Amino acid sequence: MGLVVHKYGGSSVADAASVRRVAQRIVETVKNGDDVAVVVSAMGDTTDELIDLAEQVSPNPPARELDMLLTAGERISMAVLAMAIADLGYQARSYTGSQAGFITTAAHGSAKIIDVTPGRITEAIADGAIPIVAGFQGVSQDTKDVTTLGRGGSDTTAVALAAALNADRCEIYTDVDGIFSADPRIAPKARKVPVITYEEMLELAANGAKVLHLRCVEYARRSGMPLRVRSSFSDSLGTLVTSSYELEGVAVEAPIISGVAHDLAEAKITIGGVRDEPGRAAAVFELLADAEVNLDMIVQNVSAAGLTDITFTLPMSHGDIALAVLRENKGNIGFETLAYDDKVAKVSLVGAAMRSHPGVSATTFRALADAGINVEMISTSEIRISVVTRAEDATRAVQAIHTAFGLDADGEAVVYAGTGR
Amino acid sequence: MGLVVHKYGGSSVADAASVRRVAQRIVETVKNGDDVAVVVSAMGDTTDELIDLAEQVSPNPPARELDMLLTAGERISMAVLAMAIADLGYQARSYTGSQAGFITTAAHGSAKIIDVTPGRITEAIADGAIPIVAGFQGVSQDTKDVTTLGRGGSDTTAVALAAALNADRCEIYTDVDGIFSADPRIAPKARKVPVITYEEMLELAANGAKVLHLRCVEYARRSGMPLRVRSSFSDSLGTLVTSSYELEGVAVEAPIISGVAHDLAEAKITIGGVRDEPGRAAAVFELLADAEVNLDMIVQNVSAAGLTDITFTLPMSHGDIALAVLRENKGNIGFETLAYDDKVAKVSLVGAAMRSHPGVSATTFRALADAGINVEMISTSEIRISVVTRAEDATRAVQAIHTAFGLDADGEAVVYAGTGR
Repeated sequence: MGLVVHKYGGSSVADAASVRRVAQRIVETVKNGDDVAVVVSAMGDTTDELIDLAEQVSPNPPARELDMLLTAGERISMAVLAMAIADLGYQARSYTGSQAGFITTAAHGSAKIIDVTPGRITEAIADGAIPIVAGFQGVSQDTKDVTTLGRGGSDTTAVALAAALNADRCEIYTDVDGIFSADPRIAPKARKVPVITYEEMLELAANGAKVLHLRCVEYARRSGMPLRVRSSFSDSLGTLVTSSYELEGVAVEAPIISGVAHDLAEAKITIGGVRDEPGRAAAVFELLADAEVNLDMIVQNVSAAGLTDITFTLPMSHGDIALAVLRENKGNIGFETLAYDDKVAKVSLVGAAMRSHPGVSATTFRALADAGINVEMISTSEIRISVVTRAEDATRAVQAIHTAFGLDADGEAVVYAGTGR
Repeated sequence: MGLVVHKYGGSSVADAASVRRVAQRIVETVKNGDDVAVVVSAMGDTTDELIDLAEQVSPNPPARELDMLLTAGERISMAVLAMAIADLGYQARSYTGSQAGFITTAAHGSAKIIDVTPGRITEAIADGAIPIVAGFQGVSQDTKDVTTLGRGGSDTTAVALAAALNADRCEIYTDVDGIFSADPRIAPKARKVPVITYEEMLELAANGAKVLHLRCVEYARRSGMPLRVRSSFSDSLGTLVTSSYELEGVAVEAPIISGVAHDLAEAKITIGGVRDEPGRAAAVFELLADAEVNLDMIVQNVSAAGLTDITFTLPMSHGDIALAVLRENKGNIGFETLAYDDKVAKVSLVGAAMRSHPGVSATTFRALADAGINVEMISTSEIRISVVTRAEDATRAVQAIHTAFGLDADGEAVVYAGTGR
């Protein structure tokens, strides 16, 4: 007998039949003795359809109104899910982000949660009703306007609600069976990871793994809320994301590497012929920070003849603005050449056990060299090694590393199946 | 320089192009020097589509959740309209019923407005922004849950907002050019009525005219808010609905009859062989009132041999429950026969000037007799005469009365055109 938060994504509630199946799962959980609070995303492609509608009316809609529009999506799904639960003979009540107490900043489209005051949710549970909360939305503390947390924000809503309710765990239901050791679409031998630490999950999410959003994992880590990622289409337990403390003992037999992530959405900029003197690099990065360009990996080559090259990666979508800022400030910075390359891939291997296992770098570079893959940039953290390669080498790089660290499953990974590992 | 409330119905904002056209009209009004507050319905068939979705999930969805679901419709239209206005370079801000201060009873699906506290709307206007308010919805005073006012409630929202803002007038934009002297689909010579009193409009709305909802007209009458019904597809001034006081002078040349309404949605029940003694009729009507059956016309025939017949009309949709209640209580009431007939029409002629013109009844019954139409029931008010006929006679009855009172226009009525009268 505990309290669990369930979060269902858009693909889990894509149509009336899916909504009824989700209702069934929620009711089963209640029958088994747990209290459940539910967070739900908009049905299927609703959010994209609403964005299309907005674009038909205005090429650049005001952010406040876009938030008002998009939050209609969860309003629909939560009401329909409450109806489906009621139809099974259980009481359910839907709540908007505002009604559920999600107080946020006023940054429309990317609001941050300031506080969660879920008085009405607690009340509903005490009344024996199942509360259904709209994911992804809140109300601005200052303006009282409706806000959204940004795409994928529903996962964060779920974790924040679980933390505010002091729930026992938060289960994220999606259309895949859990976290895999690599993207099964490019590494068919990827296997499901039964447990993973917050830190590993953060590194995977930050480096291209798509299942969980960085922000949701960070929130879970900060609040110590165990997360379970599982499929709403099966009974598999999925993947538990938890603290390394919880994993002690469990994880002794865990492989050195938890997973290999890849990211094809980055580009690489090289500023050539910068004078190698203090403050030059700082000037470049200050300019880019002022333009709100997110830098990822940064490498500065060894100086030759008093000149050096600075290379960094950034999201492709920030490419144009970064180039414009650099060109405008060519005189101040003082550089000779500027090269932009978006045919690159970032491949990252992540594993908490890496800390205590020497030779991980050696194994990685040997595997890539044997596969004939050239490494253009390298960046490491305590539990991650990332390399930049040609985009066309990404699949082979992921597979080579996956195999080199003994991650390959015996059979092919089955992503949508009900059995899992 | 005044303050006007515009209300746009679903057909006026059916798609992105319509929304842009409505935005243009609002901006034109502002350019001409008026402040505008807008009330908007859900786009096109959105409400029906949401009801379909609910029915796919549950045959009998909880009313609270149905309200939550349906209010998503206005949320979408109001945000999109605000975007379209912003795209024309004017500031617009959308507000839910709750944000706009619509405090209601907790009767989901048919909530009554208790109070309107439009502080945020006044603020928006003071800031130079055009407020867009969701029609048809509010928030329950007691439960803080989202409520709806029932179908067509957006007109009421508009009038209530206009009254609360102390606006100069309220303009209801729809897909017809105003109020017509009869339904142009069955009386092709119907003409647009330029001005009409609240009382006449109430009688027309209560007796089958579809353009304005009874409740909206009643609210306007009570608050003395001038209403203008006009087409969002033309520049015609439409019809002004106002108090008879305002009409003095204007209306001297008005015809005796303002309009002829018809209603095919009623049925007729006759309870035969009731003992003609005090309290029998009261017992019948108390039983029906307890079952929430809405009675319309009631006729009791002259007694013969101590027995009498009671005949009444009621909405067809209430027929089954009325018959069930009567059958169950046959013993208590004491009657011999029970007859149900839904092949009837109610035709009503309405005109404030009727009061001072004798012979209106005579002209009416002469016209119907000349057309060979049998009158089954008669009911009159100070400014209305209603008759019940066979359903198949309805069109000819409307036309005969329309002609008899000299209402026929020279040409055929043009409903959707831009010129109007």
